Amino acid sequence: MTVSSERLSAEIDELAKFSAHPSPAVTRVIFSSEDLAARAWLVEKCQDAGLETRFDAVGNFFARRVGSDPSLPAIATGSHIDAIPNAGRFDGVVGVLGGLEAIRSLHESGVRLRHSVELIMFTAEEPTRFGIGCLGSRLLSGALDPSAADAMADSDGNSLAVLRRKADLEGSLDTVRLADSFYSAFVELHIEQGPILEREELDIGVVEKIAAPAALRVRFVGEGGHAGAVLMPDRHDAALGAAETALAVERQVLESGSSDCVGTAGLWRILPGAINSVPCEAVVEIDIRDTQIRSRDGVLEGLRRDIEEIAARRGLRVTIETISADPPAACAPEVIEAIEDAVRCEGLAARRLVSRAYHDSLFLARIAPTSMIFIPCHRGYSHRPDEFSSPDQIARGVAVLAESIRSLDSL
Amino acid sequence: MTVSSERLSAEIDELAKFSAHPSPAVTRVIFSSEDLAARAWLVEKCQDAGLETRFDAVGNFFARRVGSDPSLPAIATGSHIDAIPNAGRFDGVVGVLGGLEAIRSLHESGVRLRHSVELIMFTAEEPTRFGIGCLGSRLLSGALDPSAADAMADSDGNSLAVLRRKADLEGSLDTVRLADSFYSAFVELHIEQGPILEREELDIGVVEKIAAPAALRVRFVGEGGHAGAVLMPDRHDAALGAAETALAVERQVLESGSSDCVGTAGLWRILPGAINSVPCEAVVEIDIRDTQIRSRDGVLEGLRRDIEEIAARRGLRVTIETISADPPAACAPEVIEAIEDAVRCEGLAARRLVSRAYHDSLFLARIAPTSMIFIPCHRGYSHRPDEFSSPDQIARGVAVLAESIRSLDSL
Repeated sequence: MTVSSERLSAEIDELAKFSAHPSPAVTRVIFSSEDLAARAWLVEKCQDAGLETRFDAVGNFFARRVGSDPSLPAIATGSHIDAIPNAGRFDGVVGVLGGLEAIRSLHESGVRLRHSVELIMFTAEEPTRFGIGCLGSRLLSGALDPSAADAMADSDGNSLAVLRRKADLEGSLDTVRLADSFYSAFVELHIEQGPILEREELDIGVVEKIAAPAALRVRFVGEGGHAGAVLMPDRHDAALGAAETALAVERQVLESGSSDCVGTAGLWRILPGAINSVPCEAVVEIDIRDTQIRSRDGVLEGLRRDIEEIAARRGLRVTIETISADPPAACAPEVIEAIEDAVRCEGLAARRLVSRAYHDSLFLARIAPTSMIFIPCHRGYSHRPDEFSSPDQIARGVAVLAESIRSLDSL
Repeated sequence: MTVSSERLSAEIDELAKFSAHPSPAVTRVIFSSEDLAARAWLVEKCQDAGLETRFDAVGNFFARRVGSDPSLPAIATGSHIDAIPNAGRFDGVVGVLGGLEAIRSLHESGVRLRHSVELIMFTAEEPTRFGIGCLGSRLLSGALDPSAADAMADSDGNSLAVLRRKADLEGSLDTVRLADSFYSAFVELHIEQGPILEREELDIGVVEKIAAPAALRVRFVGEGGHAGAVLMPDRHDAALGAAETALAVERQVLESGSSDCVGTAGLWRILPGAINSVPCEAVVEIDIRDTQIRSRDGVLEGLRRDIEEIAARRGLRVTIETISADPPAACAPEVIEAIEDAVRCEGLAARRLVSRAYHDSLFLARIAPTSMIFIPCHRGYSHRPDEFSSPDQIARGVAVLAESIRSLDSL
């Protein structure tokens, strides 16, 4: 398959300019002015490529090349373009612009497909604004209650209902859910966000399983006071509860015995936040993942016990809120095989992989046969400005995606 | 001495309305619009009381009732009106509005003093904006280099030089320093910010020593990355460095054996601050105090060793910046005696105390005989919205302040 690596690289660089922080950092929070401008830019690119475009009520974007038999369910590909603060330019973007490039390549190579092919750009894969990842794909697959979603609010108190209306997204969230037969298959192209492919000098990772992420929000409430005046025995310092909790996450994960298990305390809010005040409140958000739901849930259970013990010992009140606790997804054998056929066809080197990161595919797998195509990225870096995959690495991923779509079309 | 408790309470409530957060919280950061409005209000109150007013170049405010012998150095009293985020309405304010009330009470009681009496409202006692406490009193007493002070910037990069000019404060900071003979004495009225007076049912604390505070800024830099994809053995999580540091502060202080020693990690900044990102950078600001400089410096030394060990073990880069490390201040025997005479005169119950909190008096003690008058506050709460001293408790403090000034006038 001939892929225009140059056109794609230029588009990736162009999209990176829609950012709240200066290059090389990319910050594109969902429904921010940068995100809205990037969405408008993407719509134009898809229309220029002759695709039929539409948005749903939550802002998932669809761009379709109609097949020769429009009665068949479409083959879908896609990912997201939102980016956490100070991220890079490839996470998600490679799957959206690479998906567009795959559809253009098939067309320019004169390939006629029976199935329609649909590119999807999912709303808010990143949890930055609403505290929950994969907002768009959750709604699309029925994994999230639409009315609960509309009531979710960002840290400034803006609800999703208000924000999506401001973004001209009308209609009820009930309409976002797609039928289980809507797509015949879903394939997501993505950077690995891990070091394995680069280390083993492979072109492609074929994802056979997506790890099971769980997210907690832990809030300690203690007693504030002046840092000079409250003596140590009288203290109930909420920040120290959070500090012990973060270290307990690390310890529980290391003691789980599962080498695939990871745990992170990534988001911290310590109040009132003054050098001369004893912290009265501390919120820490925790992300725990494993390929085995059993060992992940064992870590969660141990952590809950630790947190209760920390709170009791320090005289703190604590609440533990489960933000999400999704089951892992197994990928569809026929999609895995289509990707592996494509790899052989392109003469590339590949291996099967487990995805430890959260992806929209986790939810698409609930309504369609799904797998993912991973490409190498420099040192496994992701969610940081120096995230990098080369134009050639990306082009090989796009070629495999295009070939996979052709192969799925013949099933 | 007759004090108008009603007038004073009304003024304290009025001043509390100049706040960036709604009542009962008070947030009044130096040179914010709330602070500037509060300053203008205070100037008017002082002029209404017939006092001569002036500002110096850093925004310290002076209001003077001229004595019968203007050639004598003035007796000074005062405190601050800036407030950390989500603080209460009494810290500092009791010393400024109470000082004004003491001067009015002396006048209204027909007391004629030989010395002029000067009320001082110090700029930025709180370190919220510039990271250093007692900005105004440091400059006034020569404890801070004026050109270094002008170059200090807030977290948005605004320098003091720019901010004070925006607040119409002209002139060089070199002019702020007052001569050692400028005041014959300084007395600061303040809430205790500790539980002792309330617990022992006393009206007044006479401060004989002010504890020695030291402040550090510790910055860890590690490696960021996706929370799902970076396996545990590959991590260099900066937030875990900060977490261990905060716990090391607590441990070092408890192991110091000094019951007066306190240590707090009050300000935290964890970047990039997303639930699904491994923290790449963590800043934590630490405050350590003791009445004995020796045990305080022992804690600092132990903490530095701990931080270096944490950084080395976790593969983090670390910098430790000393924000301040001031020596403790001893109060002047003649001022202590004047306060104790006033307590007897008013028929109140008092004891001597050590101030563990930072005060402008710490720096005034460098240029004038100084002591402080403490009044009880509810459960020792301070730097929080439910900080509270009753109108009667405050009035008794003001009466003692006024009597102390009269007593110091006769020396």
